[in-house]
Amino acid sequence: MRLTTFSDYALRVLMYAATAGERLITVEETARVYGISRAHLMKVVNILTRMGHLRAVRGRAGGFALARPPADINLGAVVRATEPDFALVECFATHNRCTITGRCRLPGVLNEALGAFLATLDGYSLADILLQADDFALPDGVPARPEAAPSASRG
Amino acid sequence: MRLTTFSDYALRVLMYAATAGERLITVEETARVYGISRAHLMKVVNILTRMGHLRAVRGRAGGFALARPPADINLGAVVRATEPDFALVECFATHNRCTITGRCRLPGVLNEALGAFLATLDGYSLADILLQADDFALPDGVPARPEAAPSASRG
Repeated sequence: MRLTTFSDYALRVLMYAATAGERLITVEETARVYGISRAHLMKVVNILTRMGHLRAVRGRAGGFALARPPADINLGAVVRATEPDFALVECFATHNRCTITGRCRLPGVLNEALGAFLATLDGYSLADILLQADDFALPDGVPARPEAAPSASRG
Repeated sequence: MRLTTFSDYALRVLMYAATAGERLITVEETARVYGISRAHLMKVVNILTRMGHLRAVRGRAGGFALARPPADINLGAVVRATEPDFALVECFATHNRCTITGRCRLPGVLNEALGAFLATLDGYSLADILLQADDFALPDGVPARPEAAPSASRG
């Protein structure tokens, strides 16, 4: 059982933005911090902006920041929005061909379990998993840009 | 968020075997009932047999049946055994490269949610989702073999 990489990255972007506070961060910086692909993050940031969790500032000195306090960003709501579906088994999905659909009692049980999963996440906000700048292993909380800190050490 | 097809099929095999009762069923018959690949089911039946949920009888008239009462087959235990992992996000997996691992507080929240999911399933056994023979849309509970029932109607 897995969440999509999209949800994983969305949660990471929000965590890093929460730590950055008012400072505008960029997709490039976030990709470097986590060592992940910039292309993947672009779409994640777009969706989070559309959801109202991030605010984007255009232009050369632009970037993005949290649009609301971390306590107002519910983890259950984020995962509900970033997962493409919760099709635990075939009959939950669009192209279901299971022959016992409609009579089977498994979906009820799985839906109850899924509800318990999401209800747990609903009990937490981004504020509950907030990190400090040095948790990202970057000196002084300012991400090391290659040209600015060629010998930046970790820790 | 999805379970694997393997878990899906394992639950279907157990449901069909529970309905068949003492009668030995085969992989071929189960594959036909659900309209799914025989090859996929072979491995599922082998694992369920190894887990002690099914007992296999070899030979020409052989097949398999539940090895224990449906009430003794816990759905949480089945899913725990059939899912290859519960790697909800990257850091739960073997080849984790997330840079904030060890400091991040998200795994604790996700583990709690996963625990709630599995605890719900732990509250149910195969007996709770038992179907009747005609729920499988086959007359008299005996699966229609192509040669035996060329005009078998549904319902």
